[in-house]
Amino acid sequence: MPSGTLLYAQSGGVTAVINATASAVIQAARARRVRVLAARNGILGALREDLLDTASLTAAEVRGLAHTPGGAFGSCRLKLKSADEDRAKYERLLAVFRAHDVRWFLYNGGNDSADTALKVSRLAAAAGYPLTCVAVPKTVDNDLAETDCSPGFGSAAKYTAVSVRECALDVAAMADTSTRVFVYEAMGRHAGWLAAAAGLAGQGRDDAPHLILFPERPFDEADFLARVDAVVRRVGWCVVVASEGIRTADGRFVADAGGGRDSFGHTQLGGVAAHLAGRVKDALGLKVHWALPDYLQRSARHLASATDLEHAMAVGRAAVDCALSGQTGVMPVIVRDADAPYRWHVDIAPLARIANHEKTLPAGFIRRDGYGITAAARRYLSPLIAGEAFPPFGRDGLPVYVVPAMKALRRRLPAWTG
Amino acid sequence: MPSGTLLYAQSGGVTAVINATASAVIQAARARRVRVLAARNGILGALREDLLDTASLTAAEVRGLAHTPGGAFGSCRLKLKSADEDRAKYERLLAVFRAHDVRWFLYNGGNDSADTALKVSRLAAAAGYPLTCVAVPKTVDNDLAETDCSPGFGSAAKYTAVSVRECALDVAAMADTSTRVFVYEAMGRHAGWLAAAAGLAGQGRDDAPHLILFPERPFDEADFLARVDAVVRRVGWCVVVASEGIRTADGRFVADAGGGRDSFGHTQLGGVAAHLAGRVKDALGLKVHWALPDYLQRSARHLASATDLEHAMAVGRAAVDCALSGQTGVMPVIVRDADAPYRWHVDIAPLARIANHEKTLPAGFIRRDGYGITAAARRYLSPLIAGEAFPPFGRDGLPVYVVPAMKALRRRLPAWTG
Repeated sequence: MPSGTLLYAQSGGVTAVINATASAVIQAARARRVRVLAARNGILGALREDLLDTASLTAAEVRGLAHTPGGAFGSCRLKLKSADEDRAKYERLLAVFRAHDVRWFLYNGGNDSADTALKVSRLAAAAGYPLTCVAVPKTVDNDLAETDCSPGFGSAAKYTAVSVRECALDVAAMADTSTRVFVYEAMGRHAGWLAAAAGLAGQGRDDAPHLILFPERPFDEADFLARVDAVVRRVGWCVVVASEGIRTADGRFVADAGGGRDSFGHTQLGGVAAHLAGRVKDALGLKVHWALPDYLQRSARHLASATDLEHAMAVGRAAVDCALSGQTGVMPVIVRDADAPYRWHVDIAPLARIANHEKTLPAGFIRRDGYGITAAARRYLSPLIAGEAFPPFGRDGLPVYVVPAMKALRRRLPAWTG
Repeated sequence: MPSGTLLYAQSGGVTAVINATASAVIQAARARRVRVLAARNGILGALREDLLDTASLTAAEVRGLAHTPGGAFGSCRLKLKSADEDRAKYERLLAVFRAHDVRWFLYNGGNDSADTALKVSRLAAAAGYPLTCVAVPKTVDNDLAETDCSPGFGSAAKYTAVSVRECALDVAAMADTSTRVFVYEAMGRHAGWLAAAAGLAGQGRDDAPHLILFPERPFDEADFLARVDAVVRRVGWCVVVASEGIRTADGRFVADAGGGRDSFGHTQLGGVAAHLAGRVKDALGLKVHWALPDYLQRSARHLASATDLEHAMAVGRAAVDCALSGQTGVMPVIVRDADAPYRWHVDIAPLARIANHEKTLPAGFIRRDGYGITAAARRYLSPLIAGEAFPPFGRDGLPVYVVPAMKALRRRLPAWTG
C-alpha cells in the first residue's frame, strides 16, 4: 500500500459525467489501497482544510456517482494568480497537504484548473515538497487543448442534438398558424462546439437546425435576418441555434446576462436567444419561440452519451495511474485513433501545453456560408454522442441519483483567513 | 367493413405523445377496416381540403409514430366562432366532409378543440349530415375538465421533475463561489400543473425546488425576494420554479413575451424567469442562472412517461370505439380508480361539460404558504410520471423519430378562399 493520501477536487462548471470521473478515481485508488480525500468545493476546500474522507462511501455509492450529475463534492470558480501574487494561498495549500500527508493532487476541471494544477506542481517542487499534481479533463465547452475532446462535452452535445431534433418537430407542426421561428441558445462561451453539435440533429439544408450562429464568426444582424426570412419562405419555418458567445464584428457580445464577471474575469453570458427572438419578431413580424436550457444541458445525466461516460471514467483511472507513478504536471487526454468505427485511447500530455489555452472550433468545421457544419465536423462530432447510458429510474419515475452525506475531516490547522 | 371515412386532426400545442394517440387511432381503425384520413394542420386542413391518406403509412411507420414527438400531420391554432359568426367555415367543413364521405371526425386537442368538435357536431346534426364528432384529449397544461389528467401532461411533468432535480445538483455544486439562485420557467398558462410537477423533484423543505410560483396565487415580489434570501441563508442556494402565467395581485402578468395574442386571444407568455432572475440579482446581489425550456418540455419524447404514453394510446383507441358506435359530441377521459398502486380506466364524457372550461390546480394542492405542493398533490402527480418509455436510438446516438412523407389527396372541391 503506497504511503500518503490522494486529494481529489472538482473545479469550474460541473457536467453530467464529472462524478463518473470521481467514481473512477475512487475505485482505481481503492484498488491500489490508496486513501482518497475530496476537497469540498474545489481548491477552496483545500485552502479551508474542508476535506471529505471518501472512505465513508459504500461501494454502491461510489458506483452510483457514475450515474449522478452535478459535482458530488462541490466545485468552485477560483483562479489562483501567480506564485508572487498569491503566495499566501500557495503556502496554505502546501501546509494543508503536509498536514494530511497529501502526496497526490488530482484537479478535475478545464483550462483554468489545468493552470492551477500546474502552478501548484511547480510551487511544491520549488518548496521541496513531494507532490504529484495531475489535472483531469472536464468541460462541456470542449475547449481544452491537447485532448481530442473533453469529458462532459459528449453528453451536453447529445442533449443539444436530441433537444433540437425534438423541438424542431414541434415547430414544424405549429408553423402554419403559430410559431415560425425557434431560437435555441447553446452554451460554449467563446467556442462553438456545442452549437456545432446541434448540427447533428439534421442532415440536409432544409433540416433543422437551419441556421447555426457560431462565436467564431462575427454576427451580422442584417444577413442573419435575411437568411431567417429565406428559410421561412422556403421551408415554412426556421430553427436557429445560437451560441451564447456570439459577437458582432467590433467584438461586442450580442447579448450578455448582465451578471458581471466571475473571478476568472469571464462575463456571465445568457440571453442571446431572447434578443434574437425579439429582433426576428420586430424585423420580420414572425411569431418566435426560444429556449435557454442553461444548466439543463450540462446536467442532463438522463441523456448522457455512453462514449462520453467511458471517456470520463477512463481519464479518472488514468489520472490515478499517472499520480501513483509520479508523473506530475500532466493531464490524461483522449486520443482519437479512428472516426468510424470510432476508436480511441488515453495518453498523457504536459500541462504547460494545456493551461490557459483555448481550443476553438477549426475553421474547416464551419460551412463556408458560416451558418452550418461541414462533413468534417460531423465525422468529429458523431462518435462523441453515440450510445445511451440511462441512469436507473425509481418507481417514482425519477432517476435514482446518489447524493452521499459526508462528514468533513477534523481540522489539524488553524482556520484559513485568506 | 363500415362504410365511410374517419378524419383525424391535431390541434393546438403538440406534445411528446400526441402522435402516440394518432398511432392508436390509425391502428384501431385499421383493425376495423376503416379508412383514416388526416387533415394537414388541424381543422385548417379540413377547410382547405388538404387531406392526407394514412393508408400510405406502413405498419412500422404507424407504430413508429407512437415514439415520435411533435405533430405528424401538423397542428393549428384556429378557433371557430359561433355558427352565426363563422357560418361559411362550418358550411365549408361539411362540404369537405361530404366530398370525402367523412362520417367520423376525431379532433385531438385541448379545451378550444373540444369546443370546435362540439360546434361541428351540432352543426352537422342541424344540417342533417350524419357525422360523429369525438374530441380526443391532449394538452401539456393538464387544464382539461372532466378527465383526471390530459395525455401529454405526464411526459411534460416528468421532464420538468427530472430537469429540476438535475439542474439542482448542478447549482448545489456551484453555489459556494458562483450561482446561488436558479430560476426554471415552466409552461402551463393559467394553470400551475407543470410548476406543481416540479415539486416531485424534492421531498423536504430544503430540497429543490425550494420555491414554486403558481399562477393560482398572486405574485408578491417583496415576499418572494425575502423567501429567496431566507433559503439561500439556510441552504446555501435556492431553486425557484416559476409558472409562465404568474400575475401580480392586480391581474397583470409578471412578464409576457411581447408576442401579442394568438387567434384564441391568448397572450404569448415566456420571459418570467429572466425577469425574476434580474430582480433577484438587483435586490439581493446574488448570482443567478435561469432556464426557459419552452418547447423542449413538451417535445422531449426521449423522457416520456410510460403512464402518459399508455393514456395517450388508450384515448386514441377509445375515440375510435366511440366514433364507430355513433357517440357524437363526446370525449374519452381518464378516470382514476386508485392512487397507489395506480389504477385507471377510460370513460366517456360529453363535450358540453368540457368545451371552454379550464381545470385549475385545486387549492388543496398548493402548500399553505403558497410556495410548494402538498401531500395530496404528490398523490395525484406521482403516478403520472411513472415509468420510462425511451424511443429507439440509432447508432448515431439520436432517437429514431418517424417523419413519414405523405401526399395530399387530390382535391374534389374548389379551393377554399375563406
